[in-house]
Amino acid sequence: MHDLVVIGGGGAGLTSALTAKKLNRDANILVISKDDLSYSPCSLPFVLSGEILSFDIIGHDLKGICEGSHINCVIDEAVEINLGEKKVSTRREGDFPFKSLVIATGGRARKLDVDGSNLKGIYTLQDIEDGKRILEKAIESEKVVVVGGGAVGVETAAALRKRGLDVSIVEKCDHLFGHCFDKSYSDIINKTLEDDGITVLNGKSTDGFNGRRWVDSVNVGGEDIPADFVVVGIGLIPNGELAEKAGIKTFKGAVQVDGWMQTSVDGVYAAGDCVFTRSLVTGQPTFSQLGTSAVRQGKIAGSNAAGCYVAMEGVLNSMVLKLFDMEIGRTGLTESDARDMDIPFISGKIKTTTKPQYFPGAEDVYIKLVFKKINRQIIGAQIVGGGEGVADKIDLCAYAIQNHSTIEDLMKLKYCYTPPLAPINNAIVDAAENAYRKMARLEEVRRRKF
Amino acid sequence: MHDLVVIGGGGAGLTSALTAKKLNRDANILVISKDDLSYSPCSLPFVLSGEILSFDIIGHDLKGICEGSHINCVIDEAVEINLGEKKVSTRREGDFPFKSLVIATGGRARKLDVDGSNLKGIYTLQDIEDGKRILEKAIESEKVVVVGGGAVGVETAAALRKRGLDVSIVEKCDHLFGHCFDKSYSDIINKTLEDDGITVLNGKSTDGFNGRRWVDSVNVGGEDIPADFVVVGIGLIPNGELAEKAGIKTFKGAVQVDGWMQTSVDGVYAAGDCVFTRSLVTGQPTFSQLGTSAVRQGKIAGSNAAGCYVAMEGVLNSMVLKLFDMEIGRTGLTESDARDMDIPFISGKIKTTTKPQYFPGAEDVYIKLVFKKINRQIIGAQIVGGGEGVADKIDLCAYAIQNHSTIEDLMKLKYCYTPPLAPINNAIVDAAENAYRKMARLEEVRRRKF
Repeated sequence: MHDLVVIGGGGAGLTSALTAKKLNRDANILVISKDDLSYSPCSLPFVLSGEILSFDIIGHDLKGICEGSHINCVIDEAVEINLGEKKVSTRREGDFPFKSLVIATGGRARKLDVDGSNLKGIYTLQDIEDGKRILEKAIESEKVVVVGGGAVGVETAAALRKRGLDVSIVEKCDHLFGHCFDKSYSDIINKTLEDDGITVLNGKSTDGFNGRRWVDSVNVGGEDIPADFVVVGIGLIPNGELAEKAGIKTFKGAVQVDGWMQTSVDGVYAAGDCVFTRSLVTGQPTFSQLGTSAVRQGKIAGSNAAGCYVAMEGVLNSMVLKLFDMEIGRTGLTESDARDMDIPFISGKIKTTTKPQYFPGAEDVYIKLVFKKINRQIIGAQIVGGGEGVADKIDLCAYAIQNHSTIEDLMKLKYCYTPPLAPINNAIVDAAENAYRKMARLEEVRRRKF
Repeated sequence: MHDLVVIGGGGAGLTSALTAKKLNRDANILVISKDDLSYSPCSLPFVLSGEILSFDIIGHDLKGICEGSHINCVIDEAVEINLGEKKVSTRREGDFPFKSLVIATGGRARKLDVDGSNLKGIYTLQDIEDGKRILEKAIESEKVVVVGGGAVGVETAAALRKRGLDVSIVEKCDHLFGHCFDKSYSDIINKTLEDDGITVLNGKSTDGFNGRRWVDSVNVGGEDIPADFVVVGIGLIPNGELAEKAGIKTFKGAVQVDGWMQTSVDGVYAAGDCVFTRSLVTGQPTFSQLGTSAVRQGKIAGSNAAGCYVAMEGVLNSMVLKLFDMEIGRTGLTESDARDMDIPFISGKIKTTTKPQYFPGAEDVYIKLVFKKINRQIIGAQIVGGGEGVADKIDLCAYAIQNHSTIEDLMKLKYCYTPPLAPINNAIVDAAENAYRKMARLEEVRRRKF
């Protein structure tokens, strides 16, 4: 009998086990994982690009990590959760009774259901095995079509471009990164990708794959684009089946959890790509299939499973990517999100540089902060530009959203400065001041009205 | 008659003029400046190092900037403020009556008063002329002694070391960066400087300079250290004399201001290196001779001079430096500050990496967050390590201090992540969790007591 059984050894599962153990050194904890390696799937594109030399470097032995923390580990597939008898059955190793349970079964790459989708040479990128297959094929190929203009698609496209391949991205929306970036910011990203030699086809549907045994071209809106292979990156399907079969409530295939990451069953928690979560800004249910959300949810599920009371405050889907020499980041709501939700907003937008303009290596940066008009609170941020500091600036904006900060609060930021690292005028302060002046003008117009 | 006269065209002065103009397009504003160039003195070391190719690049024509914003500009020295007649007299151009006045007279480099301090070859680094003299001398020299282990001293030392000189730093305290960093963090910086070939002499007094006409050695604690020239960086003296002569209240030579940056005289404001300001954490008077503080104070003085009501919330002395490949940053109070002020504290400390360890180029980073024990609120942060993101992480910590954030607040940070830019576990969250566990252990010990 284990105090806690965790199904899944990924970011959410392993974190929940480690957190529970830290909080209760005497707890008897078991992790059940199909995969014997622990790694961040976000690192896969960088092996494809050659920046990381081998898949061996990114993976760590899961059993070793667990042993180091005095956690038991079984490499096997969980096939049934029996809530009556409080046990998990696995394919080979038998049954494991539990007092508390954390379900962290993750998700699987969504496939495209069109003509020819069973041809060879059509890949998704989710685990190391996928990565190895793609890399093997990429080395002998010239042309690749990537279907999907989200993070996985664009990172994979950039990686294969770095390998020297002829790369096209097909995105069905009118701009890359759908709801993550507003079109104007997405257009800046688009241009950089094209400058680096990637063909971007926005607003195009992928209607089918052609070829005999192997794919040799992709039907994009009626036109055939030659491809030696294809990578499809169109999102994740939550692995909610195991929970659903056991009678745990699910929604759209994902495990439903409350603010404590507890499922509909007492003492059974869930975390990571298999759950629905809530937006910190709107309180609405949302998917957040990010490694950072998995880690945070894992900490909360593990803490609560170990007897603490920690609430999940919701997600902002803070995200950062490095694409060639560009860094792009975002958090919270875009202008387009706000418009869709009928939230009156005002944005502060500026173009600045990563360092003072006179300093060698200074690059352009575009920053946009979105504020609610009604209370001047920040609800979102987007930053795109030449590298350096985008990740940490996004973190600051996310923290400001969490703290219900107003335009005026951000104008007071006590930032630091040195010419090799930052300009004397801080980008976030400047963007907040831009919004402030817009608000002031609005108020002036209103005063004139009455 | 000008609506607003600003004495000083540096960071504080120019910012206050530009801010007042933005708020009131019709205002008639005059800047009186001794220097006809506008530049950031923080950029001077990077011309010495050769990173910036020439002093011509960093300076901009002050008159041109003012004209572009429809502000009048006189290049002359203000010699008297007449408060009765509300006018400023200059050396050559005559008198300038004002409605409001901003005093932004800056500071001057403190000199060392020891034997031989009148010898040639002993420099301070405050303006472009100083920089030119040092650079000219550096090109024909081999050995330099830098007196003072604060920001100016250490940056100058690093710059001259990059030029290939044999560099020694003499610091009278037992560690570099006195109150800016705790000794343990200062020791890490110290080691990097020594690894890069700089000799650091801590806890040593500079007792005199030897030589006939030109300095040829420095007497450091009884020992003579050969030097072709010397740079002294031991702080700034506020230029408060002009205000004092006019009857405006000063303290320790600096202009006293209230929370609106107004001096003891109605309608007369002051900003920048010439004023005393207050600490945001302790509320105590403090110097903050930083470019960022000058800009913020200039914005506030300019706003209030133009008829707005904006309060100066105090300073945190957020600072960042790039020294060789290392970035060092700090904000708020150190542990040593807290100890001196009898503030019970608990620190969260971790060592992490700039990216995941498997990613090429990952470098060590040390981060320390200082929290008040009584309410778990953050009061300070220090970060030292291999480059990337230190400036923006310090900004986030500063923002957390401004927002009275607790350990638990920081643990919830909705950070972003991508392998080329950041590890999956955020440094600030990890350091907060470290403090959390220490607090939990403390509470456990207390529970056991009763």
